[in-house]
Amino acid sequence: MPNELEPYSRRDLLALIGAVSGSAAMYHAMTSLGFASDSGYKGPIKLEGDPKGASVLILGAGLAGMTAALELRKAGYKVQILEFNSRAGGRNWTLRGGDTFTELGGFKQTCEFEQGLYINPGPWRIPYHHRAVLDYCKRLGVTLEPFVQLNHNAFLHATNAFGGTPQRIRDIKSDFQGQISELLAKVTQQGKLDEAVSKEDREILLQALKSWGALDGDYAYKANPISAEFRGYATSPGGGLGAGPIPGEVINLSDILKSRVWRYLQIFARHTFQDTMFQPVGGMDAIGKAFAREVGDIIQYNAKVTRIQQDDHGVTVTYTNLKAPATPQLAKADWCVCTIPLSILSQIPVDVGASMKAAIDAVPYAASVKIGLQFKRRFWEEDEAIYGGISYTDLPILQIAYPNTGFNSTGRGVLLGAYIFGGPNAYEFTSMSPAERIARAVELGANIHPQYRTEFENGVAVAWHRVPYTLGCAGNWTEKARADHYDNLCQIDGRIVLAGEHASYIPAWQEGAILSSLNAITRLHDRVAKT
Amino acid sequence: MPNELEPYSRRDLLALIGAVSGSAAMYHAMTSLGFASDSGYKGPIKLEGDPKGASVLILGAGLAGMTAALELRKAGYKVQILEFNSRAGGRNWTLRGGDTFTELGGFKQTCEFEQGLYINPGPWRIPYHHRAVLDYCKRLGVTLEPFVQLNHNAFLHATNAFGGTPQRIRDIKSDFQGQISELLAKVTQQGKLDEAVSKEDREILLQALKSWGALDGDYAYKANPISAEFRGYATSPGGGLGAGPIPGEVINLSDILKSRVWRYLQIFARHTFQDTMFQPVGGMDAIGKAFAREVGDIIQYNAKVTRIQQDDHGVTVTYTNLKAPATPQLAKADWCVCTIPLSILSQIPVDVGASMKAAIDAVPYAASVKIGLQFKRRFWEEDEAIYGGISYTDLPILQIAYPNTGFNSTGRGVLLGAYIFGGPNAYEFTSMSPAERIARAVELGANIHPQYRTEFENGVAVAWHRVPYTLGCAGNWTEKARADHYDNLCQIDGRIVLAGEHASYIPAWQEGAILSSLNAITRLHDRVAKT
Repeated sequence: MPNELEPYSRRDLLALIGAVSGSAAMYHAMTSLGFASDSGYKGPIKLEGDPKGASVLILGAGLAGMTAALELRKAGYKVQILEFNSRAGGRNWTLRGGDTFTELGGFKQTCEFEQGLYINPGPWRIPYHHRAVLDYCKRLGVTLEPFVQLNHNAFLHATNAFGGTPQRIRDIKSDFQGQISELLAKVTQQGKLDEAVSKEDREILLQALKSWGALDGDYAYKANPISAEFRGYATSPGGGLGAGPIPGEVINLSDILKSRVWRYLQIFARHTFQDTMFQPVGGMDAIGKAFAREVGDIIQYNAKVTRIQQDDHGVTVTYTNLKAPATPQLAKADWCVCTIPLSILSQIPVDVGASMKAAIDAVPYAASVKIGLQFKRRFWEEDEAIYGGISYTDLPILQIAYPNTGFNSTGRGVLLGAYIFGGPNAYEFTSMSPAERIARAVELGANIHPQYRTEFENGVAVAWHRVPYTLGCAGNWTEKARADHYDNLCQIDGRIVLAGEHASYIPAWQEGAILSSLNAITRLHDRVAKT
Repeated sequence: MPNELEPYSRRDLLALIGAVSGSAAMYHAMTSLGFASDSGYKGPIKLEGDPKGASVLILGAGLAGMTAALELRKAGYKVQILEFNSRAGGRNWTLRGGDTFTELGGFKQTCEFEQGLYINPGPWRIPYHHRAVLDYCKRLGVTLEPFVQLNHNAFLHATNAFGGTPQRIRDIKSDFQGQISELLAKVTQQGKLDEAVSKEDREILLQALKSWGALDGDYAYKANPISAEFRGYATSPGGGLGAGPIPGEVINLSDILKSRVWRYLQIFARHTFQDTMFQPVGGMDAIGKAFAREVGDIIQYNAKVTRIQQDDHGVTVTYTNLKAPATPQLAKADWCVCTIPLSILSQIPVDVGASMKAAIDAVPYAASVKIGLQFKRRFWEEDEAIYGGISYTDLPILQIAYPNTGFNSTGRGVLLGAYIFGGPNAYEFTSMSPAERIARAVELGANIHPQYRTEFENGVAVAWHRVPYTLGCAGNWTEKARADHYDNLCQIDGRIVLAGEHASYIPAWQEGAILSSLNAITRLHDRVAKT
């Protein structure tokens, strides 16, 4: 659930890390083999050595907790899991017709989507470089299909630009790149790059700009058949007589600059959001369910942890069985892997040292709201030729994301009518009732798709700060918090180790949760095997 | 089967057409409605009026012929189709294990792919703006899935650059765009754009270049966490302790320019190849088979047309029934829709006027070769995290395309080991035996994927100039030929009208075939209804 528009929040810290040394040398060593493997995940974990009958209590049946359970049990540990919710998966969650969900504050929603339609309120896409998630999908039999991140025919919308008319991504992308190329080609020809670029390279640069920027023989980007082969046509080429194409007008650079829709163009280029991306067929919860098929037998649901204690001999966790809340329950084990989100863990008494406790308290959780809307027909495909992908807007809904499944089919469809993260918008929507959130998303979205007004049927809205099991969307590390607290958070404290996306450098992503878990249990096992 | 690297062959002609007038005015009229519809296809054809018992003989059961048959029969015509091949679909064709294919010259291949694996020797992808193809898929129940055109993690390979090591598309794309942005930002700061860009715009331009080009605070693009969030990492961020990311080195602009791999970057930006693209689930021939479900009952297979005659009363076609070739057969009708490729039609005596005959003879057919290779495992996914999409190389194979289905699965896989179009390479491969083509594709491809050497199992190779039913890949209009002959080709000549991709402005694409057919039968029906 990362903020696509603020890619640089981790930069200063990363710069520190990158500067530590050797990145160039390491890169060259790797690429000299031809195929740099850039993931820290090197295939299934191997926990060798005897756990000597040790037991592990895992708190939380999200992906981090279930990964730990699966691998530790396989390595010979006695494992049990306590889970607050009545289902496994955690933020790995899919809402379908008939599902109910009660948020903090008491609002209960029943999803009314038609059978087969869904939204993923939590994670919804998997990058190709999330090797651990992909490997578990393969091992656990989760079928994947492409998640279209960049759809050139989706919209970019700025309320105060272009008369409020949404623009096709392809038009903005082509026209921006073309006119940038034209500017650079012109100064190259005028000799203004002579200091920066060698004569030989300048000549190739002009060829490259012409190719890449769709420039004409005079290095100009304008409305003509060359730009039309990139931005598309006013009238596309057809068949038979009278079917010649007509190029469209170019949107001038000044208008694009002032509209600020250029800020969306970097999203599709970012490593995190680069195609090819994936989604599980049928909903993201296919992953949670696949893990639960492996470890469901050792999950105790409806178990709300209220206290975590440890001493030299083991860990004792006090919890409330929500189905029989009168009597507090105890669970004991030699070790504990705690994957409870910090937003909740910070409110539970935990016997850990001051540095870990400070780390637990140091990480605020990002606000995020997702709203699914069902419509009578897939008008975005039928009327506008938008198949999957995302439209971006400066309206408070921020995004409209189109379903990446059931393409070109007739009948109803569900789209993501808002995906709001961080900032006042997310809090404003969180403070509304679900019905108000949905009504507002429909009202705002109609600025982009007027069909909303006649085609809308029903919706469902999840505000993550009101999800009782998470109280937020994901750990929102500041650079300072990470520098001060991250290592303290991840260290084993006595018999307790934490795991989850919050204990990773990939916050808010399932890959972070799984890699964090694998890292934690590897260290835990080392300690057990050595004891 | 278009040449991705020569986008501009139609430009001069298109410029003529675009200049005819009014494109700006028309564009503005359309976009003022908010949603320009750029396709000439406006939904199912309506052929109103009584055909008065007229009969139509259709030559060719490819998509053009079957579209005509489906719609004309629905409009009340008596329709029959003659087809040279023993199956319907024409170039819409999928090869699977057990399929056999004998090419001109007598080489017979039996495809040995494992069940479920295939290649599409002809068309293999459908753009989102090919509205007619998509509408027929919807009407005829053909299920679609995404065709990944741009995979950022696939390779760009230049034999004489980077020591022959293939480079990730994401690295070249980010590093080229970043350094282009840096150059332009620098001249902007130096005041060298003051004449071309207003002061207000210059300030926004700098912000935009910083965002779009991943520049740092000094407007520099270099190895740091900012560029790493676009190009990817030497070591990606992980989870737990010791898991901080390490950025990779930037490839300098001079090396990218000299390598000429930049020429591939325009492909993904072109309207024709922009994501979202599609493929039918299970193989492209799902479309041909869907049409054949509708009109298969009126197709006569193995019927090789040898003469086409017409007079004031009707059309008479002489053909050979290849199952009983001794006696020439006759077929008669009031009208004829001829979709026979011009490569073959030009060799058949046809009673048409001099201008249409000259047009039929004026269009050479492009050479093209596709080679499917089966491997023991999907090493491109397992070893290199390449899921779908295409790697490009300056080796004669030109492309390696990865399957866009069965992602992340275990077991065997088939990739497209060569897709060669135009130029001497295509003819060189066409002149080889199928076994030689396959061996050469494996030898060359091993430069990009060394795993070829141990994982290859079997292959199949289609050289379109040796396909008896087509004698080439697609109509290869020169600008002059189109200016001189296109309208003459498409006009109704007496009782004969031609259709097919060759009679369209979208040569080599299924959309061209269907739109051409719809245009032709609309005009034919107008004439019949008026008679």
